[in-house]
Amino acid sequence: MKIYRVNMTEGKVTSEEVKEQYAMLGGRGLTSQIVAEEVDPLCHPLGAKNKMVISPGLLSGTNAPSSGRLSIGFKSPLTGGIKESNAGGTAAQKLAKLGIKAIIIEGKPKEDKYYLLKISNDGIELDSADDLVGKKNYDISESLRKKFGDKVGVMSIGPAGEYRLTAASVAVIDPEGRPVRHCGRGGGGAVLGSKGIKAIVIDDSDAPGVLVHDKGKFKEAAKDFSKMLTSHPVSGQGLPMYGTAVLINILNEAGGLPTRNFRHGRFEFAEKISGEMVHDTIEERKGNPTHGCHAGCVIRCSQVYHDKEGKYLTAGFEYETIWGFGANCEIDDIDAIAKMDFLCDDIGVDTIEMGVTLGVAMEGGVIDFGDSAGAIKLLEQISQGTDLGRIIGNGAGFTGKAFGVTRIPTVKNQGIPAYDPRAVKGIGVTYATTPMGADHTAGYSVTANILKVGGLIDPLKTEGQVELSRNLQIATAAVDSTGLCLFVAFAVLDEPKALERIVDMLNAQYNLKLTTDDVTELGKSILKTERRFNKNAGFNDADDRLPEFFEEELEPHGAVFDIPHQELDQVWDF
Amino acid sequence: MKIYRVNMTEGKVTSEEVKEQYAMLGGRGLTSQIVAEEVDPLCHPLGAKNKMVISPGLLSGTNAPSSGRLSIGFKSPLTGGIKESNAGGTAAQKLAKLGIKAIIIEGKPKEDKYYLLKISNDGIELDSADDLVGKKNYDISESLRKKFGDKVGVMSIGPAGEYRLTAASVAVIDPEGRPVRHCGRGGGGAVLGSKGIKAIVIDDSDAPGVLVHDKGKFKEAAKDFSKMLTSHPVSGQGLPMYGTAVLINILNEAGGLPTRNFRHGRFEFAEKISGEMVHDTIEERKGNPTHGCHAGCVIRCSQVYHDKEGKYLTAGFEYETIWGFGANCEIDDIDAIAKMDFLCDDIGVDTIEMGVTLGVAMEGGVIDFGDSAGAIKLLEQISQGTDLGRIIGNGAGFTGKAFGVTRIPTVKNQGIPAYDPRAVKGIGVTYATTPMGADHTAGYSVTANILKVGGLIDPLKTEGQVELSRNLQIATAAVDSTGLCLFVAFAVLDEPKALERIVDMLNAQYNLKLTTDDVTELGKSILKTERRFNKNAGFNDADDRLPEFFEEELEPHGAVFDIPHQELDQVWDF
Repeated sequence: MKIYRVNMTEGKVTSEEVKEQYAMLGGRGLTSQIVAEEVDPLCHPLGAKNKMVISPGLLSGTNAPSSGRLSIGFKSPLTGGIKESNAGGTAAQKLAKLGIKAIIIEGKPKEDKYYLLKISNDGIELDSADDLVGKKNYDISESLRKKFGDKVGVMSIGPAGEYRLTAASVAVIDPEGRPVRHCGRGGGGAVLGSKGIKAIVIDDSDAPGVLVHDKGKFKEAAKDFSKMLTSHPVSGQGLPMYGTAVLINILNEAGGLPTRNFRHGRFEFAEKISGEMVHDTIEERKGNPTHGCHAGCVIRCSQVYHDKEGKYLTAGFEYETIWGFGANCEIDDIDAIAKMDFLCDDIGVDTIEMGVTLGVAMEGGVIDFGDSAGAIKLLEQISQGTDLGRIIGNGAGFTGKAFGVTRIPTVKNQGIPAYDPRAVKGIGVTYATTPMGADHTAGYSVTANILKVGGLIDPLKTEGQVELSRNLQIATAAVDSTGLCLFVAFAVLDEPKALERIVDMLNAQYNLKLTTDDVTELGKSILKTERRFNKNAGFNDADDRLPEFFEEELEPHGAVFDIPHQELDQVWDF
Repeated sequence: MKIYRVNMTEGKVTSEEVKEQYAMLGGRGLTSQIVAEEVDPLCHPLGAKNKMVISPGLLSGTNAPSSGRLSIGFKSPLTGGIKESNAGGTAAQKLAKLGIKAIIIEGKPKEDKYYLLKISNDGIELDSADDLVGKKNYDISESLRKKFGDKVGVMSIGPAGEYRLTAASVAVIDPEGRPVRHCGRGGGGAVLGSKGIKAIVIDDSDAPGVLVHDKGKFKEAAKDFSKMLTSHPVSGQGLPMYGTAVLINILNEAGGLPTRNFRHGRFEFAEKISGEMVHDTIEERKGNPTHGCHAGCVIRCSQVYHDKEGKYLTAGFEYETIWGFGANCEIDDIDAIAKMDFLCDDIGVDTIEMGVTLGVAMEGGVIDFGDSAGAIKLLEQISQGTDLGRIIGNGAGFTGKAFGVTRIPTVKNQGIPAYDPRAVKGIGVTYATTPMGADHTAGYSVTANILKVGGLIDPLKTEGQVELSRNLQIATAAVDSTGLCLFVAFAVLDEPKALERIVDMLNAQYNLKLTTDDVTELGKSILKTERRFNKNAGFNDADDRLPEFFEEELEPHGAVFDIPHQELDQVWDF
């Protein structure tokens, strides 16, 4: 495998052998390591000194089930700290099959010009992207697939990335060419835009494929692991049937569904935006309720959502998106929410950040809570490049500052996702302490707090939350390095042998003798690397805190976020 | 003397005796101490937990020459750290004469309503300010002086403070009632606005005045000190004659006048915006080139500037303002710059932050460099409350983010003032390390670097800059506590007996036996208190850095900012 270096200052692509210390790194482990080694923590995130590292996971491109995650790493223009953002879609597997361990995009073009990065078995080359400038993601995908064939993978930025907005995402297409999978969080789209890259096309025809040392052992472990995934109630039933939006009713019931900019824990009209409702609507309109975002996924939590006329509206319609535009904005019109999901995918902005941002904009009186037409217009302003669009597209913290709002649900300037930290305290610990800024995926304590997966830790009590979050953060950093979807965690947490099967696959592929302890050590090492970067970028313990308004009581439980600061810091005692 | 506490949540004013440990604190020493003791460093700066502390200096209200400075302290919405911002004008002396050591404004009104704080010999009361809402500073001053008599002091916020913009200032009127003296830096206007206070009127008729223990000794020391100020070439000749704008030609000559958003060290048309030109223009138009911003000032660096028709245009027309809208924006029309100064005073925004912001907006292509009409329109947008106005009014860092600019001259998100840190390295050390964010007044190394005051330290070399900045920062923290104008520093640095005379005045006033060492210790203690607050607010050493673009060579000297990070941190070795 090789690492490619794309120097945008020189317009030159070179390749290098993989250093020995990178051999057992992939995905987040590799992106964070390279960012930490090569990026000045004090650099401007949109300047020549920042780098974007793109890396498939260690198992990507193999037959390991649900292993199609792609990581991108960079210094975040949103948080000012290190960022790893990952997505499904078709890119990771194709890169891995082409023998690409990572792509490091560095420097900055001398002219204000956009390029297309063409990746194939012949290597990587830069081409002009003049014809794509100003285009949105759906259009870009269509145009590139027309030109390069509909089997190619595509990554791209929309207008938000061109405007360098800090909520800009990097889109990755799904198997049908829809740009609905996004490395959403932290402003990767702005970084890619600052490098002058509008799109990346990946043609893996004639790719050598991934070398698996012991195919027999690998197959056996993969089969076993796959069975564990499909037999777990969450990854085998809930997610395939209802998608991630199955969580709407669950979190609402738990009193942890943030409503009206995190003012209440329950949304009166939750039922109207629930996964069950989405499922029935999709069936009725002849969409597809169970769809895989990449080949070989056995969970298939994605779906294709049609409008009232039965025409395609959006896909990959996630819980966090539906929550953000729904409960958080008090919007109960699921079609309007689907339209907003489509707009974000097309313009290239993170749906979570946008959901939080619209809540803050409503708080600031820009539009009223519940105003779905107004919300759609606000999102459209982003691609129009208006002053208001630039405010909204820079996220919740920025929008709050623009409109003098004090109730701003962010940590490290990144919007807090769909689980209220007062009613789900373990996730609050993760929001506060992960080096990523508020991020539920960094240590998804909703498992033991709400879903009773991997045990049960009362979500309303302070006891055990720090340990829960710590263990999950460590495990997640490791999982994010394998290319496996985080949703394998449900099985891993409940099924004693699941982690072993992952290790078996890695050992069979790479001819190694790793143990499960090695996986834990990898996770710890990644977290420490990331935290060191953030310290050198100007963060200290006081940045590992939730906004003050989480001292307010949250109905229905009257819960406050009351884990002492000192205990939060203990997440790092490992 | 008393400390008043204005609780805006309750709408209640109480007074308290001065704690013993506050007795020898005033101005910055007192505001920083109270903020550090009473404000949660993690609070939202515009929320109920922040406080604004207003305090005259220790010598304010006496006959000490040039002792009319007022300090306000708070957690800054611009930097996120502690802030002391001071101004001349008439407020400090009146407060001191009324026996007010400090006013602590805390809480937040329950309703969205504005109040007038009325201060007189009868105490402090809150009154409705409904009639002032939406008004600009000139209008407010006129209206309050009409109502309460033209001898009153007035402090107020303009529309920028009402909009909670982070560049919003607190205006203080001069003896003629013009709101041209501003606690400008750090967003104090937004904090006062968040407390629901639109204006403060100070009526010192029947005030008891300041008690001076040994009047004879005080008078003697004051007289001697006054002579030192008036006989020094800077405070006795340059400043009274040309105002602070005398520095335009000096900095241009030194190659340290930041031009075109800090791209060059000299401005082709510097002569057209120089202090000499301003002086001649004022004389020609029958303005007043030498004016004191408060009674008893012997330096009188202020001036009254008339337009082409001989009508009042602005007053208190400072070097940093003229630099910011002039050289930094490549605008050479001094009347346009004067108009911008007027607009900022009226709207209530910091002229330095606005000068830096307009440079960044020009960099981002919002308007062209040199476009004075466009610049005036941008400033006017602030009071119109447009989306663009909200962007601009939130300062340089915010504007840069909105428009994807990477060349953003800020430290701790506060705009870098009028001295390029590459050509005046001592001031670069101050910008980087002061707890205030980029602030020339926090340790004005221009003295020894450029003006040859207090010795000479080659501005282009790295040697001696850290020590110079450290000593000045310590001394400044102390001077900012006395109520003396920072411009007394020229005499203090060159005249061995000057500091002793200050100590003599303090001893005579308060019946003490302080030594000059005590003054140094006070300065050290203030700085440490401020830095501790910032640490608890999330800052570490990595925040004490200049933006990366100061690695670029600055013409004419080809200078870069090359003081190693490690040495910057040594500022704190005391």
